[in-house]
Amino acid sequence: MINQLSKLPGIGQKTAQRLAYHILGMPEEQVRELASALYSGKKRVRLCSVCGNYTENDPCAMCEDPERMNGMLCVVKDPRDVAAMERMRDYRGQYHVLHGAISPMDGIGPDDIRIRELMTRLASGDITEVIMATNPDVEGEATAVYISKLLKPMGIRVTRIAHGMPVGGDLEYTDELTLFKAMEGRREM
Amino acid sequence: MINQLSKLPGIGQKTAQRLAYHILGMPEEQVRELASALYSGKKRVRLCSVCGNYTENDPCAMCEDPERMNGMLCVVKDPRDVAAMERMRDYRGQYHVLHGAISPMDGIGPDDIRIRELMTRLASGDITEVIMATNPDVEGEATAVYISKLLKPMGIRVTRIAHGMPVGGDLEYTDELTLFKAMEGRREM
Repeated sequence: MINQLSKLPGIGQKTAQRLAYHILGMPEEQVRELASALYSGKKRVRLCSVCGNYTENDPCAMCEDPERMNGMLCVVKDPRDVAAMERMRDYRGQYHVLHGAISPMDGIGPDDIRIRELMTRLASGDITEVIMATNPDVEGEATAVYISKLLKPMGIRVTRIAHGMPVGGDLEYTDELTLFKAMEGRREM
Repeated sequence: MINQLSKLPGIGQKTAQRLAYHILGMPEEQVRELASALYSGKKRVRLCSVCGNYTENDPCAMCEDPERMNGMLCVVKDPRDVAAMERMRDYRGQYHVLHGAISPMDGIGPDDIRIRELMTRLASGDITEVIMATNPDVEGEATAVYISKLLKPMGIRVTRIAHGMPVGGDLEYTDELTLFKAMEGRREM
């Protein structure tokens, strides 16, 4: 049990041991519920065939939501990025999860992430703006640029989330590259 | 000695004690040099009467540099923010240091920071763009908005450094407000 638990991220040998003792002290019924929640959860949840996010029903509720069919499509790397965007509670369009980013160093090319599915989706013509919300790192930028080059000839508006100072940040402790991006991206007040 | 040293920021009782022992072990000549560097440095360095940055000569070298007279003026809160901008090595215009930010909660109003000096400076008409590079926090925003309202009627272009994702950041760990600003400020690719 300790061995299995310690394979989880952020759980070392000691934490695994503590969890294991806790589980051994739980009533059998509760342990059964925990185990079945893990296993049946894993069995029920799959990837939405449209957006690639985790879902129990295919297509997922967000892809089926008519209120989200506003012509906007936000492209992210991971399902957890969808959750981050949703926490913001402002964006009300659709998503497309790439499940990775282009990274030649790691041998991940355009065909290894869900770009083909994105193109198929955009062929329907319902989407007017694609927001590239991949991370502001090397791989995320490369992916955003690659996809934007594919979409430009299709006449689809492609935008990139802003780079700049995080809210509440401090100039003094901001790295040079971020400061450069903040100056470059300055806007009329 | 320990008492005085421990008044410096980031230096607690223990560090002060370690420093004190180190200083006591130094040759007298070196201690004299250290002490005089502190005192004469403090005596020599004043505020530039033009930009408000620290300088030994008034006006400072940056204010006198003809290459920096390109019509751009970057407004920051602190002298240390000038240093941060200079580390970026991209901005080649002039600076204006406010020495604070408007903060009604702390009783700091527009008259308590160097806004009057800014207005006097702009009256000459050499500046065509004022870049508000105050911090992206409540006080910094309030200060930027206040100054931009003063400058708009003068026909001066006022811009604000971009808010958004710091370079190398991760969507998943970005706070909602920054994500909101990143979406709001998204740009055509």
